[in-house]
Amino acid sequence: MSNMKTSIDPAVNYLLPLAQKAGIETAWDRFEAMKPQCGFGELGICCRICWKGPCRIDPFGNGPQKGICGADADTIVARNLARMIAAGAAAHAEHGHHVALTLLEIGEGHALPYKIKEEKKLRNIAERLNLNPEGKDIKQVAKEVALASLEDFSRQKSSIPCNWAKETLTASRVEKLVELGVMPHNIHATIAEIMHRTHVGCDADAVNILLGGLKGALADYTGMYLSTELSDVLFGIPEPVVTAANLGVLKEDAVNIAVHGHNPLLSEIVCDLAIKMNEEAKKAGAKEGINIVGICCTGNEVMMRRGIPLATNYLSQELALVTGAVDAIVVDVQCIMPSLAALKECFHTEVITTMPGNKIPGATHLEFSEETALENAAKIIKLAIDAYKRRDRSKVNIPDYKETAIVGFSAEAVLAALSKVNPEDPLKPLIDNIVNGNILGIALFAGCNNLRVTQDHNFTTIAKELARNNVLMLATGCGAGAFAKHGLMTQEATEAYAGDSLKEVLTVIGEAAGLNGPLPLVLHMGSCVDNTRAVNLAVAVANKLGVDLDKLPVVASAPEAMAEKAVAIGTWAVTLGLPTHLGIVPQVIGSPLVTEVLTEKIKDLVGGYFMVETDPKKAAVKLVAAIKERREGLGI
Amino acid sequence: MSNMKTSIDPAVNYLLPLAQKAGIETAWDRFEAMKPQCGFGELGICCRICWKGPCRIDPFGNGPQKGICGADADTIVARNLARMIAAGAAAHAEHGHHVALTLLEIGEGHALPYKIKEEKKLRNIAERLNLNPEGKDIKQVAKEVALASLEDFSRQKSSIPCNWAKETLTASRVEKLVELGVMPHNIHATIAEIMHRTHVGCDADAVNILLGGLKGALADYTGMYLSTELSDVLFGIPEPVVTAANLGVLKEDAVNIAVHGHNPLLSEIVCDLAIKMNEEAKKAGAKEGINIVGICCTGNEVMMRRGIPLATNYLSQELALVTGAVDAIVVDVQCIMPSLAALKECFHTEVITTMPGNKIPGATHLEFSEETALENAAKIIKLAIDAYKRRDRSKVNIPDYKETAIVGFSAEAVLAALSKVNPEDPLKPLIDNIVNGNILGIALFAGCNNLRVTQDHNFTTIAKELARNNVLMLATGCGAGAFAKHGLMTQEATEAYAGDSLKEVLTVIGEAAGLNGPLPLVLHMGSCVDNTRAVNLAVAVANKLGVDLDKLPVVASAPEAMAEKAVAIGTWAVTLGLPTHLGIVPQVIGSPLVTEVLTEKIKDLVGGYFMVETDPKKAAVKLVAAIKERREGLGI
Repeated sequence: MSNMKTSIDPAVNYLLPLAQKAGIETAWDRFEAMKPQCGFGELGICCRICWKGPCRIDPFGNGPQKGICGADADTIVARNLARMIAAGAAAHAEHGHHVALTLLEIGEGHALPYKIKEEKKLRNIAERLNLNPEGKDIKQVAKEVALASLEDFSRQKSSIPCNWAKETLTASRVEKLVELGVMPHNIHATIAEIMHRTHVGCDADAVNILLGGLKGALADYTGMYLSTELSDVLFGIPEPVVTAANLGVLKEDAVNIAVHGHNPLLSEIVCDLAIKMNEEAKKAGAKEGINIVGICCTGNEVMMRRGIPLATNYLSQELALVTGAVDAIVVDVQCIMPSLAALKECFHTEVITTMPGNKIPGATHLEFSEETALENAAKIIKLAIDAYKRRDRSKVNIPDYKETAIVGFSAEAVLAALSKVNPEDPLKPLIDNIVNGNILGIALFAGCNNLRVTQDHNFTTIAKELARNNVLMLATGCGAGAFAKHGLMTQEATEAYAGDSLKEVLTVIGEAAGLNGPLPLVLHMGSCVDNTRAVNLAVAVANKLGVDLDKLPVVASAPEAMAEKAVAIGTWAVTLGLPTHLGIVPQVIGSPLVTEVLTEKIKDLVGGYFMVETDPKKAAVKLVAAIKERREGLGI
Repeated sequence: MSNMKTSIDPAVNYLLPLAQKAGIETAWDRFEAMKPQCGFGELGICCRICWKGPCRIDPFGNGPQKGICGADADTIVARNLARMIAAGAAAHAEHGHHVALTLLEIGEGHALPYKIKEEKKLRNIAERLNLNPEGKDIKQVAKEVALASLEDFSRQKSSIPCNWAKETLTASRVEKLVELGVMPHNIHATIAEIMHRTHVGCDADAVNILLGGLKGALADYTGMYLSTELSDVLFGIPEPVVTAANLGVLKEDAVNIAVHGHNPLLSEIVCDLAIKMNEEAKKAGAKEGINIVGICCTGNEVMMRRGIPLATNYLSQELALVTGAVDAIVVDVQCIMPSLAALKECFHTEVITTMPGNKIPGATHLEFSEETALENAAKIIKLAIDAYKRRDRSKVNIPDYKETAIVGFSAEAVLAALSKVNPEDPLKPLIDNIVNGNILGIALFAGCNNLRVTQDHNFTTIAKELARNNVLMLATGCGAGAFAKHGLMTQEATEAYAGDSLKEVLTVIGEAAGLNGPLPLVLHMGSCVDNTRAVNLAVAVANKLGVDLDKLPVVASAPEAMAEKAVAIGTWAVTLGLPTHLGIVPQVIGSPLVTEVLTEKIKDLVGGYFMVETDPKKAAVKLVAAIKERREGLGI
């Protein structure tokens, strides 16, 4: 493990030695220092759910096989997993809830620096939620959509499914999920339900707990779906745009502001205001004015919608500061390393936290609210300009690595491209090419970075293998970041790596869509909260074919799953019917029962299942096999 | 530690050797086998919040001081604690939510085997919640109260506090809590908020996380308060009743049914039906018919309201089955050892789980619903009678230990007793005696059993010391169970242990209330969800004195805290202003910052604080000192 390469990212490999030389600690150092990691935790058989414990099950069978209360490995593993799902769902829920509340404020006519950018999409959503928008004022529609979304956080009748779950899946999937008792009626209530059933002396039946986990994962799905769709309404539906990725997007002669986290509510305003305040930066000596770059999923949000370049993904966030060229890093929520604040000691960078529930000791806290967003953003930019003036040029090391990335493939953008091939029936070219085998199947890459593997390596290795096998690829989150940084979101990558038939299809669509060449090899679908964009497409295909999602030759892969959000996303992908690959061994294998349920038995329940494979080449083989099995099932 | 006595309960000390001889494993065996317990977990510095980890901070300062993401001991400890509070709040929330939904069904006129037993209380609640009940039909009032309670689970406006928090505290406390930003607006949302802010890369500011924890604890308080009050409406306000406690309450010639868990919705019906089915049991050969006994807090619920004897408290629940005389144990939610099902192998006992989210492999699952409660209860009793027929009399060992217990001291019952002394102003005799020092102060004992100390020992030792110091004592949950088992809820205990002035006061009130002697030494206020009964009284006293709760000579103690619910309860007790003793070292001391905040700095914020003292005699000294400090503050 210690001979493992840290990363295949050339910018990382350029900066890490510099950091080490300067005595600057990064996640890679802390990972090494943490070894050996606790085996009980890795296996999921450590229980800290009450103060009688901690309890640990002996995986070798010599020591305790039960915790003090009598909970065995199955119970403990299932509880730990369910709580991770609950936390992941909570993260997406809060994100979606925040956006829905903002939409409600707009609908109610409050003065906010946001507006409804996509009226047509809002009306479409209202149709989908059965709100009869016809003839209604757009603010009224906004209000009704917001309230229908907030219903999914407040409904008290457990027999009525969440609007955003019920109206976005195939009818047969909804029926199956209701029958299994895993359809959430209320996102927050479902999270609380998991926390209760995993309390000491509650649910001890691992399978029952896992079913609770599936429900939690669907609550996650619900929160994500509405988050993405309502964000599009406020900030625009992503469309293909050419930009760049990796730390070479930082500019020596600009005030570099990195936006980092997940929630676009603040970063959108920062981007708007940066244009207006450009001259101010120039006056401060920055010839190129203000240069906004993105990190993690706030980065993906502004990249998809504005073509803002992506500086890096999760694992290398600290290295953005090690360049010495980031004047301010503005963070909102989720996946922000607390270590960023410590880097302030070594560099001039302003580390600015903005959300009330997401502070870091040592960072500058500038509390954001929707009402004061403009003012907040102006302050942030001023702090960045001031910091720029303090920048120590002797410490600036911007790695000369960046790759072109064509991003912005929302479901709408994909359909728009397809409609250039067949305006009457946009899905037909996609389905025809799946049926005739030109496209073997579809793979969605999602999830994080994880130090347990070489950064980005699994993503690129699997993708190249799948490309060769003519699999159409979509990506979100830090997976999308990896592909963008490594040049796989380019037309050149399609030329270089796509199998012949896939290349042909991507070229036909790309040419029709006016790209003067093929679509990129991997389609960037957005941030990690945007995985539902892929479901949107898959459901459209399933409905057109008249089959459920678990029949489609569609797979998912999280080669570097790390966050609890990823655990929740992976679980709903399985629950919706997808064979779902994990490139990290999930912390459940201390229970053979839970492991068997998640990788095999669950197939009988929901069609989907987890595949665990740490070797990326073997993972690609398994993903292709899963796609082929689905094709056989369909008789194609 | 290993020389520590297991328990001071004579029934436990009688049965444990028998269990050991028969090779039957109990929690004590599993606790011994678990040693040494993980020190990282004990200190709270183990993080399993993402799949980069597990991470562990080296408490000696030689190894890692930060997790892989950069989170330090403070962040990790605070996150772990906040999640425990969230889980505790979730447990009480689900309990209260279930009761509120049942009240709604009744209000809406659905046919359920429940009725409104306490119309007057329901109308009082409606007044308190500003629902203007006057002239309204009682069903309408039930509906409105239920909906106002459900608002506390569904409200979307974060600026409006929960009804049940706002209307049950002093105005100044509400103001302070709102000012601190810790007043919950929605119980489920608050739980989700904690799960989000503790997700990887979110809140890294330990103090900020702890504030989130306080809010979670107040959500716990809200859920508990409404749970208790609405349960009283449905099942009756507890009144003083003489019953018995400890395993000697099992009867050789009866069908013994133990009800165990927390939620009275099923056990109430079981108790009703047991009377009707008594003859059936006699026909099966049980001369004494059906004998219902309680365990844990379902036990406290039926003990308080019906005088059903209490078999035992949390830690010795397995031993109830080891008597060989329990024919069925019916469990609902929380604090049910999964090991009970394994005991089925050794005994004839039917272990019956009843709630959908609380199953145990190997148990008989008979799913309960409010609609079918009668049918469910009938089946359960039939299973018990059948099991009785299979009972192996050679295995029956009922320990000859039981103590009288006078229980049922709801806030209303205490006021009723006081009103016999002063009908015009019932609180006056209490307040006068506090002011004149006859009563030094009030202590509320709450919380669980924990194997880290000798079962029940801390409770009884502290209580005897406080009694000598003329402290009026209230108890709930497994603490109340301990006092009941050890004869401290008797008039004799008052004679034996109360200081002179306390004895005099208890005698005056007891005589006036027609008890022909003093009140018992410790007043049984209910199950662990009923701790709010004590707040009810304390707020009445505070309002009458025109001071806030943090000025009163009132303390709380959880000498054997174990469950996450206890963590939540302890935290709200502190947040409401009470000096709160823990007899177990909380799993936070890996962070000096968190430890200091919880035991000292928090005093400046909310008035209350944690006192950690594992030695019960020293704990009593500290509790008395805290009371005296408060008295000094009041100038009395």
